[in-house]
Amino acid sequence: MATTPPTRSPELRKDPVTNRWVIFSPARAKRPSDFKSKSPENPNNNSSSCPFCIGNEHQCAPEIFRVPPDPNWKLRVIENLYPALSRKLDHPNGQNDDSSSELSGLGRVVPGFGFHDVVIETPVHSVQLSDLDPSEIGDVLIAYKRRIEQIKQFDSIKYIQVFKNHGASAGASMSHSHSQMLSLPIVPPSVSTQLNSMKEHFNQTGKCSLCQVQSKDLLINETSHFFSIAPYASSFPFEIWIIPRDHSSHFDELDNKKAVDLGGLLKLILKKMALQLNNPPFNFMIHTSPIKVTDSELPYSHWFLQIIPQLTGVGGFELGSGCYINPVFPDDAAKILRELNVPI
Amino acid sequence: MATTPPTRSPELRKDPVTNRWVIFSPARAKRPSDFKSKSPENPNNNSSSCPFCIGNEHQCAPEIFRVPPDPNWKLRVIENLYPALSRKLDHPNGQNDDSSSELSGLGRVVPGFGFHDVVIETPVHSVQLSDLDPSEIGDVLIAYKRRIEQIKQFDSIKYIQVFKNHGASAGASMSHSHSQMLSLPIVPPSVSTQLNSMKEHFNQTGKCSLCQVQSKDLLINETSHFFSIAPYASSFPFEIWIIPRDHSSHFDELDNKKAVDLGGLLKLILKKMALQLNNPPFNFMIHTSPIKVTDSELPYSHWFLQIIPQLTGVGGFELGSGCYINPVFPDDAAKILRELNVPI
Repeated sequence: MATTPPTRSPELRKDPVTNRWVIFSPARAKRPSDFKSKSPENPNNNSSSCPFCIGNEHQCAPEIFRVPPDPNWKLRVIENLYPALSRKLDHPNGQNDDSSSELSGLGRVVPGFGFHDVVIETPVHSVQLSDLDPSEIGDVLIAYKRRIEQIKQFDSIKYIQVFKNHGASAGASMSHSHSQMLSLPIVPPSVSTQLNSMKEHFNQTGKCSLCQVQSKDLLINETSHFFSIAPYASSFPFEIWIIPRDHSSHFDELDNKKAVDLGGLLKLILKKMALQLNNPPFNFMIHTSPIKVTDSELPYSHWFLQIIPQLTGVGGFELGSGCYINPVFPDDAAKILRELNVPI
Repeated sequence: MATTPPTRSPELRKDPVTNRWVIFSPARAKRPSDFKSKSPENPNNNSSSCPFCIGNEHQCAPEIFRVPPDPNWKLRVIENLYPALSRKLDHPNGQNDDSSSELSGLGRVVPGFGFHDVVIETPVHSVQLSDLDPSEIGDVLIAYKRRIEQIKQFDSIKYIQVFKNHGASAGASMSHSHSQMLSLPIVPPSVSTQLNSMKEHFNQTGKCSLCQVQSKDLLINETSHFFSIAPYASSFPFEIWIIPRDHSSHFDELDNKKAVDLGGLLKLILKKMALQLNNPPFNFMIHTSPIKVTDSELPYSHWFLQIIPQLTGVGGFELGSGCYINPVFPDDAAKILRELNVPI
């Protein structure tokens, strides 16, 4: 199948951050540079019926805030019309998961109180996030922060997951550029696992695993305040992490200056990904710490932004084992993306 | 969107077996009975170029065994032509993960030694697993068992994941009915998490969580030796588990009589799923215990077969948090499947 015979043997790697085993198996794959999306996203310029477009605000669920606060907005934060959780539900005032959940006899259960918000990143239907200026992307990031600061006031919210689905097959039901925020009455399992894994690394080495992660071979690009890598045990081909250079436990510690810096790097990475991988559907997720962490957890809690282009599917092996098979070694992915020139 | 207004509030449930939180969110969904696959599998009867068809054995990777052992075979176990792991690699003789893995500075690494086998379930291209007789499906299950017994001899193999991908979008690269077995030099994270979760339940209640799981509302069908349920915290709509009635830690404890009994139930469930859900792509996975478990782990280790029809996609929220959003409560799914009549 491959035009060049594979030269590397398969290898299993366990990531010190996610605590996940990944099988790197280049023998199954074409050359790393041949990876392209088979279902590239076609821009949809038909904005006549899109409720996220400027002028169609009345078709949306209620607005939470807009920036700037006038009719010519550049971004809006609104409620999700079909929320996964209910902001109207009677919610427990418990201080922790255990007091607010009860045992049903079959498992634990918690009422579905929470917030499911949408961030409309631009008023214009044909504009994608990566088309915005670094400072405009910075405004989107600061909107996340502002909404997090509002939601943090609710005692029963334990975790806020910020994420973006780009493309229908990556889960986006609307083509107008947007991201989502789901505020949960529990700490999700990936977050707890990650925190435990980073704690273990800290106890063994005395260092934060993400402060240490910088490696020349895995580096893609860097700026004053952030660097981007292909992680050592990437679960997916061309998976990318953007990590703040200075130790920081929570995304909402981001200030305006760093937001513009991050906006520039995110733009560059998304442009590179689109060019190299044929405009793939993708997801990005902000991995931040639970709202309440103890002082002892702070030294090893370090937020980052994870980007996953959709190039390969998931099958029974992944669903059953929680392991992933990745045909591209991260140093190969990093080299390709690092050396790629894109017009910005 | 829904023709019937939703009457149930969203709810978060944590499964005592998988330890996973799931958001049940009926407000997002159509009625449970309206769930249908949008990409049903079309049978592909073009067998002229299929290496899995009888007569094309020379196009395949080496055979491990066939049943019966003559030219008119009914099933074959072969090597995967594009294995994720290498059976030729020098492999460590370590007795446990820690002795065979080393720290790279960035994380743990283990050489990719392992077996990746394919079970061709029928010689005929147009026949699907659910078309076989219960005793023929039993033969497939006994073939898994026989191969597990061979691989168990390798000290460095820690876990054997049996799985089936049905349909291209569920990860199947061949349309000829087959399943796969991946034998790993590690215990996968889902397996460890599950074992820990079942241990916790056992320590709290003195009982095995799967021996206890039978609930009238969640039951779909049952036989002498097995029962099928929609699990309490199903991650996916219409997810189904088939569980041995008698406590059993390892799939390979299955005997011939129980294999035929399980074959009959699996056939019924797959037929019901195809009829109700418009022949969806699906995965099934056998969740068995690690090859080596201690005597103290046996009382709470209980194998089961998990079936996941592919009806909804996975997006950034699921990738980021490890939580799933399920629009169908399991008691609704169980009722629909329980009351469905299929011609067998």
